[in-house]
Amino acid sequence: MRPLKDLIPFEDALRIATDLVRPIRRTETMPILDASRRVAAEDVRAMIDVPSADRAAMDGYAVVSRDTVRATRSRPMLLRRLEVLRAASRPKKRVIKGTCSEVATGSTLPPGADAVVRVEDTDREGDRVEVFAAVRRGHHVAARGSDIRRGSTIVRAGEWLTPAKIGALAAIGRGRVRTFARPRVSILATGDEVVPPGRSLRLGQVYDINSNTIASVVRENGGEPVHLGRVTDRLGPLLAALRKGLASDLVVCSGGSSVGEKDIVVDAVRSLGDVLFHGIAVKPGKPTALARVDGKPVLGMPGFPTSCLSNCYVLLAPMLRRMARLPPDTRTIVEAPLAVPLIRTPGRMEFHTVRIEQGKAVPAFKESSAITSMAHADGYIEIPAEVERLEQGQKVRVVLF
Amino acid sequence: MRPLKDLIPFEDALRIATDLVRPIRRTETMPILDASRRVAAEDVRAMIDVPSADRAAMDGYAVVSRDTVRATRSRPMLLRRLEVLRAASRPKKRVIKGTCSEVATGSTLPPGADAVVRVEDTDREGDRVEVFAAVRRGHHVAARGSDIRRGSTIVRAGEWLTPAKIGALAAIGRGRVRTFARPRVSILATGDEVVPPGRSLRLGQVYDINSNTIASVVRENGGEPVHLGRVTDRLGPLLAALRKGLASDLVVCSGGSSVGEKDIVVDAVRSLGDVLFHGIAVKPGKPTALARVDGKPVLGMPGFPTSCLSNCYVLLAPMLRRMARLPPDTRTIVEAPLAVPLIRTPGRMEFHTVRIEQGKAVPAFKESSAITSMAHADGYIEIPAEVERLEQGQKVRVVLF
Repeated sequence: MRPLKDLIPFEDALRIATDLVRPIRRTETMPILDASRRVAAEDVRAMIDVPSADRAAMDGYAVVSRDTVRATRSRPMLLRRLEVLRAASRPKKRVIKGTCSEVATGSTLPPGADAVVRVEDTDREGDRVEVFAAVRRGHHVAARGSDIRRGSTIVRAGEWLTPAKIGALAAIGRGRVRTFARPRVSILATGDEVVPPGRSLRLGQVYDINSNTIASVVRENGGEPVHLGRVTDRLGPLLAALRKGLASDLVVCSGGSSVGEKDIVVDAVRSLGDVLFHGIAVKPGKPTALARVDGKPVLGMPGFPTSCLSNCYVLLAPMLRRMARLPPDTRTIVEAPLAVPLIRTPGRMEFHTVRIEQGKAVPAFKESSAITSMAHADGYIEIPAEVERLEQGQKVRVVLF
Repeated sequence: MRPLKDLIPFEDALRIATDLVRPIRRTETMPILDASRRVAAEDVRAMIDVPSADRAAMDGYAVVSRDTVRATRSRPMLLRRLEVLRAASRPKKRVIKGTCSEVATGSTLPPGADAVVRVEDTDREGDRVEVFAAVRRGHHVAARGSDIRRGSTIVRAGEWLTPAKIGALAAIGRGRVRTFARPRVSILATGDEVVPPGRSLRLGQVYDINSNTIASVVRENGGEPVHLGRVTDRLGPLLAALRKGLASDLVVCSGGSSVGEKDIVVDAVRSLGDVLFHGIAVKPGKPTALARVDGKPVLGMPGFPTSCLSNCYVLLAPMLRRMARLPPDTRTIVEAPLAVPLIRTPGRMEFHTVRIEQGKAVPAFKESSAITSMAHADGYIEIPAEVERLEQGQKVRVVLF
């Protein structure tokens, strides 16, 4: 039993952790339907113009704009309708002076026509069309290439594929797109006492909370959890499990829901690689270690479920988002006054959980060992290491779960 | 060709649309690992206490607290160690006056002991343990049920399952949980000219953008897209496709990327049910219809890709989130000054797309027919119907995509 001696400031731990990880280089190609909110791994250039030809932007009549110059409601211009075009039609006739073709929105503009008169500005009897309003060249026409020009880049490698970018890929006919793979995260629970939920519990046993919370946070930050199951506290099996875990891009161990100091994990990773830190001046989450083994990050999380989950939010999520090339976390933040004063021992940065009740932030933290410190909270506030007291009514920024 | 006559205010359309949909009642049971960010469909009560017994909250020695009352560093109290307990151990010996048992964090507290002295406050030679600090009853002990009390409700039906709530389910040993099903959304593209991406394009044809953007928005708002493919503009096939689509919870049609007024869809749904509105005073997205067929909502989206996608964000997403029982949209909003003045024709509420460049909001809207109006934007600002002009430098709220 070795108590932690040298705690490093949380900011340093975060910097070391995010510096250690590298954005994923592995790519995979998938249907655009599955690529929403993934990260593009290729520059995509348009091989066609969009629209691919001049098209009517309104329902109406394709005309020679010069014909309409003097048209008004009281003195309409009379044109002869040549043909009726639907959106999918190929125009067969050339529009010349004194003629027009009926078009639907999206119709390819017939040759000779250079503008569209809206149906609202016309009247028709048979093929005799009266035009009530002048249009200029290009009016109500979506010009070829006006949306996307052939050769232009519509998506760049590294860009986040929003629904609109998926739409742009569809617009140029791309059915598939190359994206960066999701970082694979091996999740390992250590501890003889840890039992998967669903089984019954004997004295001294606890359910595995951390594998489940870690996996949830991994998923919502662009990663893919790989469950390695539970491993006993002995070094041999732990080393074997860690080596297996290193097939992934990142390994996260947790000490089950009970082991506080987790020396066994630190001993194991130390025998395999370099321990970068062990012990963070943060509350909850102090007994946390980070190592590099075979160039891969191994994160040793505290066994206490709230310590582990809090660190998932503040330490693992930024690591993952950098690996996944995702934009910084977009967790919602709300401002609220503190319902009561919050007095604490300074020295460690604190992520203190709170509930929002009637617009006020009510401290919800019980203890690090209690998952309800987080499960019965709506989010957390960040308290700098040196702060001793937050006043009642003081505005705090609550990061919602 | 019938131009739209009576536009209803956007707020009315939104109210009618969200009033029409009902929260999903169908449920499904799944492993808790898959239930993160799903909505619970059952109240979950704890059938066990967590912790299930009094446990050590620190590494150290389980003691009778009265023994330690006078212990100080200069005058330590001497205790005899009875046994060494690991987290998973079952205690075999009763701790009595003058004795202690070594415990790891998580160890079940041995009978007789009522507190734990931290290892930092002790020294040991063989089984002789010196205690340097007094502890009170319950000190460094996580009492049985202190996290979750047997019989208490840890998750309520309708609650959003955050990672912490998944952790609470794990803590009480629940391996599976009942959640509400995702609303199924049938997506139908109409138009003879519409071709799926991946094929080659003939004159008069356009790629199907809308099915892809609708599906993306459906997915990220808790729905499950069901692709019905493309259907011709003729009434018979359209009716058949709509009837098929009604197997889902919601049907979204779009007129391909070209048909503006989409009378054919409105005619079809009118023959099957009630049209609640047709035409919204919104820009983009005016030619939008909502109907109720067999008690199910059928949304007729504009064919123009930006009109369709904009409506997906402002109209379809709120409908979906209500059906899926999700909290209101948590899209990120940033404040930024307008880079240039924005002058417009009042009368319709507008969702104007903007890019964020050097901290300023730069208008990005081209035209409703151009998907790049959205694909090259970062978000949109909401402009009330009556506003004619936004000033350069005026702060606007940008809802990010």
